[in-house]
Amino acid sequence: MTMGDAAGIGPEIIVAAFARGELNEAVVIGDREVMRRAGGAMTAVIDSPADLSEVPAGCLPLIEPPGLLNGLPDGLARLPFGAVDAANGAAAARCIEHAVALVQAGQGRAIVTAPVHKEALAAAGVPYPGHTEMLQALATPAGGARPPPVRMMLANDELRVVLVTIHLSLRRAIEAVTFDAVLDTLRIAHRASARWMQPAPRIAVAGLNPHAGEGGLFGDEEVQIIAPAIAAARREGIDATGPFAPDTVFMRARRGEFDLVVAMTHDHGLIPVKYLGVEQGVNVTLGLPFVRTSPDHGTAFDIAGQRRADPASLIAALRVARQLSTSEGA
Amino acid sequence: MTMGDAAGIGPEIIVAAFARGELNEAVVIGDREVMRRAGGAMTAVIDSPADLSEVPAGCLPLIEPPGLLNGLPDGLARLPFGAVDAANGAAAARCIEHAVALVQAGQGRAIVTAPVHKEALAAAGVPYPGHTEMLQALATPAGGARPPPVRMMLANDELRVVLVTIHLSLRRAIEAVTFDAVLDTLRIAHRASARWMQPAPRIAVAGLNPHAGEGGLFGDEEVQIIAPAIAAARREGIDATGPFAPDTVFMRARRGEFDLVVAMTHDHGLIPVKYLGVEQGVNVTLGLPFVRTSPDHGTAFDIAGQRRADPASLIAALRVARQLSTSEGA
Repeated sequence: MTMGDAAGIGPEIIVAAFARGELNEAVVIGDREVMRRAGGAMTAVIDSPADLSEVPAGCLPLIEPPGLLNGLPDGLARLPFGAVDAANGAAAARCIEHAVALVQAGQGRAIVTAPVHKEALAAAGVPYPGHTEMLQALATPAGGARPPPVRMMLANDELRVVLVTIHLSLRRAIEAVTFDAVLDTLRIAHRASARWMQPAPRIAVAGLNPHAGEGGLFGDEEVQIIAPAIAAARREGIDATGPFAPDTVFMRARRGEFDLVVAMTHDHGLIPVKYLGVEQGVNVTLGLPFVRTSPDHGTAFDIAGQRRADPASLIAALRVARQLSTSEGA
Repeated sequence: MTMGDAAGIGPEIIVAAFARGELNEAVVIGDREVMRRAGGAMTAVIDSPADLSEVPAGCLPLIEPPGLLNGLPDGLARLPFGAVDAANGAAAARCIEHAVALVQAGQGRAIVTAPVHKEALAAAGVPYPGHTEMLQALATPAGGARPPPVRMMLANDELRVVLVTIHLSLRRAIEAVTFDAVLDTLRIAHRASARWMQPAPRIAVAGLNPHAGEGGLFGDEEVQIIAPAIAAARREGIDATGPFAPDTVFMRARRGEFDLVVAMTHDHGLIPVKYLGVEQGVNVTLGLPFVRTSPDHGTAFDIAGQRRADPASLIAALRVARQLSTSEGA
């Protein structure tokens, strides 16, 4: 688990999760002074996850990546909470790189990322706007291969939703709903489920338009794009059905009719996941060669350092990461 | 309460609601043979709601509008279930006209409509595609005035959502999100609430784009259209706030932060209302001079006549109609 931006709530929610006994087999990748400032937990600095068994009870297991302080004389823990700092951005990126290296070396099964700050990453010259793009790049085999396509899945105890489009205006999202985008989403969702969740997931595809277009009366994307992509996925052995009316498909999935829902837009998918409480939502990146989860919130600079941030979503992210990575290939 | 299309599930869910003691002060506007076929309840045919006190316990109170059969020799109850018939369309329309006449004459406080069938209305030459347009026309004062603008509200025990756009493709819905459309929605929601729900409702306005546009990064409708309409509404004394991120505003309203949410699109609004169970949703037409509610489903021709249709949404519509109309001016 990476500590995220040291000026945000990441370190303190990690300590809070640890205090509640929710870390289990996770090792924190971060800075010892930052973790100490976040809640006074005793830290046990180890070199590799293999040393986890030697960590005394009550101590937070921590790995410090080399070069974390990058020559900063007073350390990260002297920097103020709630402020963008290039040193925090660089350290957050270094932790992510180290976590990927450990997982790629077989020394870890999953990565849980605490929140980073886009501006701090940019200030540090990190060439990625956030976790997802950075993880895609780190997961790309050397030799100029294209990064693996990924999709965001939002999950809680009741619902798993995979999104075709995310951070685009609704106008641009409609343009981005293409045959390839829908088919790729179905392939990624199917493969990730087969590897980490269940072998033959029943995937429901939500339409884009009201009533899934009502036979073309309220829009033709279902007829022209989404239904053909579903048909193509079915020919590949993917159990995809739809397109279904967006306003009832999530309720049907909640009742157990489907294992996953593919949604065309950010808000069609996120409204139902968040409706019962935002802290239950976990963000899972599908399409990477390893499990990666994160809490469904940001660095919350406005309350960082006050030790009142809610660790519920991070705890949920830890649980989902453990659940998925221990069921690999089941 | 109008019986709806006699070939659909309307009559049988009315009988089921009656059997559960959920009709209370409602009078059915319909045909006695159709209601008898729907479940064998004893009907007590009365001339006006004023006669309700004379109806024996255990009898379904019924008003038969004049001209209901329109010369049909064998009556409506001989027509098959699940089939479009002009006679059923004409009778359904006649019941609606009669219900409006009673309410306008002060003999009723609210109208609950069982489902009609668009094609049956069309086959009967009724010049309206559905209830809403017909009620708008019937509520229009004589002399060529324009019909009152109306908006659909979907409500359950936890959430009340008013929609700016409804049955349009998502592309066209984006075009229909105009300053006037948003401001009219806020005015209609505010006035209807002040008259029937609560005097100064806290209205949250959901954005159109992910994260409500994130300051223009993911679309500018929030900045160009929605925020100015909210500002104009506030100048009129309407307690409207936003625009808020669509993915969290419904959860915030559910927790009690707002009384109503205005949503830009059909599915942004209906996904959260329906998520916990479609049978709890009630459709309320705002902007009419009387209360009108309806269940949130159609005629269900595929199961009509089998007496297995769930009356839950009709019962909820009855409850909401009673609740709103008895709190008038509160």
